Amino acid sequence: MKTEIESVWKGNLQFESHIDGHRVLTDVPTEYGGDNAGPSPKKLMLSALAGCTGVDVAMILKKMRVEIDDLVVKVEAEQSEETPSQYTSMHLIYEFSGKDLDTDKLKKAIELSHDKYCGVSMMYKSFLNITWEIVC
Amino acid sequence: MKTEIESVWKGNLQFESHIDGHRVLTDVPTEYGGDNAGPSPKKLMLSALAGCTGVDVAMILKKMRVEIDDLVVKVEAEQSEETPSQYTSMHLIYEFSGKDLDTDKLKKAIELSHDKYCGVSMMYKSFLNITWEIVC
Repeated sequence: MKTEIESVWKGNLQFESHIDGHRVLTDVPTEYGGDNAGPSPKKLMLSALAGCTGVDVAMILKKMRVEIDDLVVKVEAEQSEETPSQYTSMHLIYEFSGKDLDTDKLKKAIELSHDKYCGVSMMYKSFLNITWEIVC
Repeated sequence: MKTEIESVWKGNLQFESHIDGHRVLTDVPTEYGGDNAGPSPKKLMLSALAGCTGVDVAMILKKMRVEIDDLVVKVEAEQSEETPSQYTSMHLIYEFSGKDLDTDKLKKAIELSHDKYCGVSMMYKSFLNITWEIVC
């Protein structure tokens, strides 16, 4: 199964990525020579993880008939100091809002995501440690 | 060194990622239950790689005083069939436009990116094979 994207150089250090008809602009902070017109490319790796596990959790809770009002997935990543800097660990904080939430079910949904459904989590776990917590 | 992002659930399977003040919306195609309002989270991993190595190549060529008119970085990724689907290899195509381009210098810039400067490439190489080619 093949997936393709392309990123078009927009001058200086900006690239516009074309993904199935959607556009995402990446750039570099001004202190590193960019124009800060978009997120730095490496940080998209964190959004990939948050979005991937977020989709799983939203789908699983729906199947479990657990109604949530809000969900924020925060990702805190540690990076190595050497060049090139690489992520060494990631910690996810799932912040749920809702009435009478069953934390066992929330926990189960997150476990299923990281153990079974989230391909991004599986790939990242091959080179770093992923931990998580629930806040509600 | 710590990096943080957060992704806010926007209903159904949409998440809006906040990265240093920039916003990136991810979603899921309609055939998988989403509304296709943004790229799928996993594909951001490909934009992360294209943007990261693209920045390196743009910076290195500038230092080498190689002037290019255009650059498109394409990423073709193979995915496994099982659940969860994971990327198993990535192939990058660097398409350069410009006058009298010195392909040895272009090649050198790409080699330096993958061997020395691109943290995303380093991380991905720990679990899959990355190949590349130049078109100009």
